[in-house]
Amino acid sequence: MKKSRLEAFSDGVLAIIITIMVLEIKVPHGEQFSDLKGLIPVFLSYALSFLYIGIYWNNHHHMVSTVHQVTGKILWANLHLLFWLSLVPFATGWIGENHFSAAPLSLYGCVLLMAGIAYVILQSMIIKSQGKNSMLKKAIGKDLKGKISPVLYIAAIALSWLNPVIAGLIYVIAALIWLIPDRRIERQVSQNEEAVTQNDV
Amino acid sequence: MKKSRLEAFSDGVLAIIITIMVLEIKVPHGEQFSDLKGLIPVFLSYALSFLYIGIYWNNHHHMVSTVHQVTGKILWANLHLLFWLSLVPFATGWIGENHFSAAPLSLYGCVLLMAGIAYVILQSMIIKSQGKNSMLKKAIGKDLKGKISPVLYIAAIALSWLNPVIAGLIYVIAALIWLIPDRRIERQVSQNEEAVTQNDV
Amino acid sequence: MKKSRLEAFSDGVLAIIITIMVLEIKVPHGEQFSDLKGLIPVFLSYALSFLYIGIYWNNHHHMVSTVHQVTGKILWANLHLLFWLSLVPFATGWIGENHFSAAPLSLYGCVLLMAGIAYVILQSMIIKSQGKNSMLKKAIGKDLKGKISPVLYIAAIALSWLNPVIAGLIYVIAALIWLIPDRRIERQVSQNEEAVTQNDV
Amino acid sequence: MKKSRLEAFSDGVLAIIITIMVLEIKVPHGEQFSDLKGLIPVFLSYALSFLYIGIYWNNHHHMVSTVHQVTGKILWANLHLLFWLSLVPFATGWIGENHFSAAPLSLYGCVLLMAGIAYVILQSMIIKSQGKNSMLKKAIGKDLKGKISPVLYIAAIALSWLNPVIAGLIYVIAALIWLIPDRRIERQVSQNEEAVTQNDV
Repeated sequence: MKKSRLEAFSDGVLAIIITIMVLEIKVPHGEQFSDLKGLIPVFLSYALSFLYIGIYWNNHHHMVSTVHQVTGKILWANLHLLFWLSLVPFATGWIGENHFSAAPLSLYGCVLLMAGIAYVILQSMIIKSQGKNSMLKKAIGKDLKGKISPVLYIAAIALSWLNPVIAGLIYVIAALIWLIPDRRIERQVSQNEEAVTQNDV
Repeated sequence: MKKSRLEAFSDGVLAIIITIMVLEIKVPHGEQFSDLKGLIPVFLSYALSFLYIGIYWNNHHHMVSTVHQVTGKILWANLHLLFWLSLVPFATGWIGENHFSAAPLSLYGCVLLMAGIAYVILQSMIIKSQGKNSMLKKAIGKDLKGKISPVLYIAAIALSWLNPVIAGLIYVIAALIWLIPDRRIERQVSQNEEAVTQNDV
Repeated sequence: MKKSRLEAFSDGVLAIIITIMVLEIKVPHGEQFSDLKGLIPVFLSYALSFLYIGIYWNNHHHMVSTVHQVTGKILWANLHLLFWLSLVPFATGWIGENHFSAAPLSLYGCVLLMAGIAYVILQSMIIKSQGKNSMLKKAIGKDLKGKISPVLYIAAIALSWLNPVIAGLIYVIAALIWLIPDRRIERQVSQNEEAVTQNDV
Repeated sequence: MKKSRLEAFSDGVLAIIITIMVLEIKVPHGEQFSDLKGLIPVFLSYALSFLYIGIYWNNHHHMVSTVHQVTGKILWANLHLLFWLSLVPFATGWIGENHFSAAPLSLYGCVLLMAGIAYVILQSMIIKSQGKNSMLKKAIGKDLKGKISPVLYIAAIALSWLNPVIAGLIYVIAALIWLIPDRRIERQVSQNEEAVTQNDV
């Protein structure tokens, strides 16, 4: 099983997810700027989801770059992740349609939570397949971000019913802490390469 | 004819099919979780179809990996397969719209049956092109799964009119038996590689 | 300019064109097979357009495989071709919506004609870039198919107003004569490779 | 971080953006050519946007071809560019829906302006990552086109409210000056290759 085709398919699905969300921003019939006012929540939720899918694409890339052998389990864990991410456009559209009201906001958190869990499963499948000296395992270390994210999502899901504004802000924060790409993996990969080079010498 | 472009195009089409299905889950106007109730059949049929397309992508990958030379026949057999798979979103949407009633459920089975037949045609085109010692032929062996699937689809098509629940379950079962990736081909490929390595020695 | 990225982008656009057409087959609200009756023309026009895009993808692949250097002109001629092909879903949808009536049928022919012209332009750009001993020029030879197609499209455009059935049949025939992949190019390429091999010896 | 996956993802997103715009050209219910009259502005705005996305794809390709190492900053600057480009279909649809009236025309300019700024940011990130002897920096030189474009966009945004026809024409002109691919970069790249070859000798 070649890694390149797993990447190509995932890239394709993520590219489509990130782009079809824009179809939820329905063109208004009016021709005034004021006719766009109703679209502001749609636009904001679109921007946030664009950011999330971008983050997933970025981290997915770093993670998969450590894979040597694509096993059946990795493949299905990857499809499982794509499944939950494919629901992001729906949850985004519902938020936009209802101007950040409680139920859509908490559904959004649920989809993010499931995607986060799917990501962790994929991660552990890859680590398992790499055996004892898993490069990915070393790379993620304590995986602080990975542990904080679900806590934030659960908090936001609960807060959606009390204060939608705070819930929304938590989603923004949970995205921003991921904005910094997974340098840990990048560092580990380059250290590995150095080690290999030294061994060659 | 390069194999890579056949793979790239098929990946693209499958990625789009798997993703545009989510557009059938129309965002409800209401803002309560109860407004999502009507979407449960849409969601379930989406999840099932996502699984089916995922299975086809997976098996397609394994099968095409054995191809050496892409002939015109293989190319058109591949497009024929993609044609039937491209109808899955429509059949899925009709099931979801009508809450698993008889006609949509049996249409779904017809589309799966046609896709299954198209897959067998593509398989035999590849085997023919590989000549006597076809790696793919050895790999699929008795092709038990490939023979059971159409029987299950036909049973589900018929049962749709008697008991939609059982028909739906059969579709789920027919998917689950494919969940296990086509290890036969994987094994054959690695055996072949070993044989090649031994010959080199 | 790398050929691979031109191919990748064209593959992406063609894969999307071929797949979004299925969105025109709107899911009916009724749950009887009789509710699908109104969709038969939509389905037939979808199948025909799927065939046409498949043919273009196939021929495009053969043609681009002869390209050594992607010039700016080739790039824009390629985008020009994709532009007209991107209108196929619209023309297809209009035919389906209006059950093969005159104007939609002739518009369909116009789009095919423009795509055909764009294809010829791209072809001549590639030939020009290859200089005197253009492999593509030798390959297409008298280009019989390429010359018959526009004649058939123009005939069908005119006949749409007299007899839509015959016009439709001409579109089907014009597709079928292309079904046979451009073996001329394939042959030329392999002859070239042989020549190269002999020179090496 | 491999450049190829950045290219593949960008290609995917741009291919989808360029193609889903066609979904805004809604199939009319009538069956006369006169029923298409209302779609002329939709078609014209589609053609213009197709051209713009084509230009971005082309220039993006040339620019990314000079990248050696994809840093986190380049990656996010690239996503930022794709974000603004993903809004082109919406702005295009609004123009078409309202027959080139003032607000949609000026919004279109705003989206183009933001995309232009995002492009410049990406450009400077790449130049920074290449250090003193940045090939891209030499290639773009004074970047005349890059400096004229935003001026034209701003002019068109303002003129939209006075004379929509002139505003529209400016968008067409701003596209046409980009039609000539970025030969500067092409030239620089080939010069560099020559220099490398000479050094080898």
